[in-house]
Amino acid sequence: MTGARVYLDWNATAPLRAEARAAMVAAMEVAGNPSSVHAEGRAARALVERARAQVAVALGAQAADVVFTSGATEAAALALAGRGLRCAQIEHDAVAAWCRADLPVDRDGRVAVPDPAAAALQLANSETGVIQDLPAGLAVSDLTQAFGKIPVAFDWLDIDIGLISAHKLGGPKGIGALVIRRGLDLAAQMKGGGQEMGRRAGTENVIGIAGFGAAAEAAARDLSEGVWDRVGQIRNILESALSAECNETIFVGQAAPRLPNTLCLATPGWKGETQVMQMDLAGFAISAGSACSSGKVRASRVLRAMGFDEAVAGSAIRVSLGPQVTEDDVLRFAEAWLDRWRKFRQRQG
Amino acid sequence: MTGARVYLDWNATAPLRAEARAAMVAAMEVAGNPSSVHAEGRAARALVERARAQVAVALGAQAADVVFTSGATEAAALALAGRGLRCAQIEHDAVAAWCRADLPVDRDGRVAVPDPAAAALQLANSETGVIQDLPAGLAVSDLTQAFGKIPVAFDWLDIDIGLISAHKLGGPKGIGALVIRRGLDLAAQMKGGGQEMGRRAGTENVIGIAGFGAAAEAAARDLSEGVWDRVGQIRNILESALSAECNETIFVGQAAPRLPNTLCLATPGWKGETQVMQMDLAGFAISAGSACSSGKVRASRVLRAMGFDEAVAGSAIRVSLGPQVTEDDVLRFAEAWLDRWRKFRQRQG
Repeated sequence: MTGARVYLDWNATAPLRAEARAAMVAAMEVAGNPSSVHAEGRAARALVERARAQVAVALGAQAADVVFTSGATEAAALALAGRGLRCAQIEHDAVAAWCRADLPVDRDGRVAVPDPAAAALQLANSETGVIQDLPAGLAVSDLTQAFGKIPVAFDWLDIDIGLISAHKLGGPKGIGALVIRRGLDLAAQMKGGGQEMGRRAGTENVIGIAGFGAAAEAAARDLSEGVWDRVGQIRNILESALSAECNETIFVGQAAPRLPNTLCLATPGWKGETQVMQMDLAGFAISAGSACSSGKVRASRVLRAMGFDEAVAGSAIRVSLGPQVTEDDVLRFAEAWLDRWRKFRQRQG
Repeated sequence: MTGARVYLDWNATAPLRAEARAAMVAAMEVAGNPSSVHAEGRAARALVERARAQVAVALGAQAADVVFTSGATEAAALALAGRGLRCAQIEHDAVAAWCRADLPVDRDGRVAVPDPAAAALQLANSETGVIQDLPAGLAVSDLTQAFGKIPVAFDWLDIDIGLISAHKLGGPKGIGALVIRRGLDLAAQMKGGGQEMGRRAGTENVIGIAGFGAAAEAAARDLSEGVWDRVGQIRNILESALSAECNETIFVGQAAPRLPNTLCLATPGWKGETQVMQMDLAGFAISAGSACSSGKVRASRVLRAMGFDEAVAGSAIRVSLGPQVTEDDVLRFAEAWLDRWRKFRQRQG
């Protein structure tokens, strides 16, 4: 429908999946506390454990190794605080905040990890979509952006801890998990209850957990049905439409394997924030940088780490697609964006 | 309806209020990340800030002083970790875990606080319902059980930090807040994003927050309409029905001001866990101790702290009511419980 808004910021957060919505509405009828021993409590416990199994299957992990948290940020704190691991500057703030962020990054966005056991490395980048080869024995990997968009099998990755989030794959915001290699110990940061086998206290977010489970299951089904291949084709159509005209625009990470849905482009001299505002007014939701830092006007730390200068990094925008985005949507976006780009070029003289 | 289950464990968790349910379902349609600057992001931000205002009004606080967390357990960790405050053994595990729990408690459940600035003290106890007089200048108060059941005005309490939870007043599980005296600093434990004014990173639980706001507003309205006075009358009817027959049963905290909905009774020699199971089979959900520790069979730490011996503490049950519980419900409960009590007495000989 012409005129309707087009949401192209799926890496910031994905719309809630119908399956998650249904599971959450059903969970609203279950009154009990999962820690209570009576029938109402056991019904709530069953919802939590069913969702844990759904998330585990989707992630290629074992249910007993999945620890629910309030999101990937909490999972990162639980996995990283006080450990002094190293990471690269391309990590999400929630990871970089706990690490020495000095691992080298090349121009394509790939990170070299000399000592995996003492390092954190994301599987895919939220701004560029660039996918890393995770080295065996890696201490921590932020799987948040990859999980649900490309196949991930935790038990085959040979890493100690993975971080995931529900809302990136169509579950609700405010729920995530870390998944731990069997036998690894974890000191709780929230104490005072036996929940999550003593690894994370606090009454469980039953409704959110139910939504996470249903979303993970649906995301895995989408993946196996090739839905994201189609998303990748549409992303490529968009990329071609833009690159055909814009010689000076840099398509970041194009030389590396990328998430099928992500397009990061930088047009030196044209501020990313300005583009985001112009496209918002034109009816398209995109972003400059990751959402959690997008309130702040600053150049992308990710692009700076890849060796781009301030002018390039400050001009980057991210367009991220999802299964609901159509070819027509991205062609309309390309038309609107190219229109502004031509005006920008004219002003440049 | 005879035969339907009766939920009498509202202090473990309250059923979701219709207002919370409606707000959550509406929030499911809002796709954006509250940190995104585009229209979808601003719509999500508006939901969060509306709920913050609703919670603040219900609590008698200022919206800017409310920091959303994943529950009271996280709020407790944020308020208490590393501070070495003192508290009494009647505090919830989520508070006691961070404190030196040696403040004296009298037989009625009241706590003496010699140095309020270095102490945590709950406003109401989850097991007995006993309400404390909070001393001026108190460092931290767990308001979780009181908020929504008795009037609370944070700005008049003269305390530094209050802890609250949505699911105790008919909001969803997995969302809570701490409220801070203006000007007080708070070091974030979850880092990596500017959310909650830098005091708690992580993408907000938008759906849960919307439910919390609506539930808090509805709870405040209930309170002002005298709904909990009626709950108190029904609790008293139950208490009278039981005490008329059971001479040896102790009605814990009866001499102190109590929450209107809570009844804690101990029948020495008759295990609390046994009573919970028998009543569950009879169709009534009650608890022995607080939900988070109710999986473990052990005597109530709260009652031990009040000076009761192991036999009394191990025989305690909690019956906690809410606005949906009728006089007929509690009279049916009394009948069922007294029937088992008579059998217990016969076995005693």
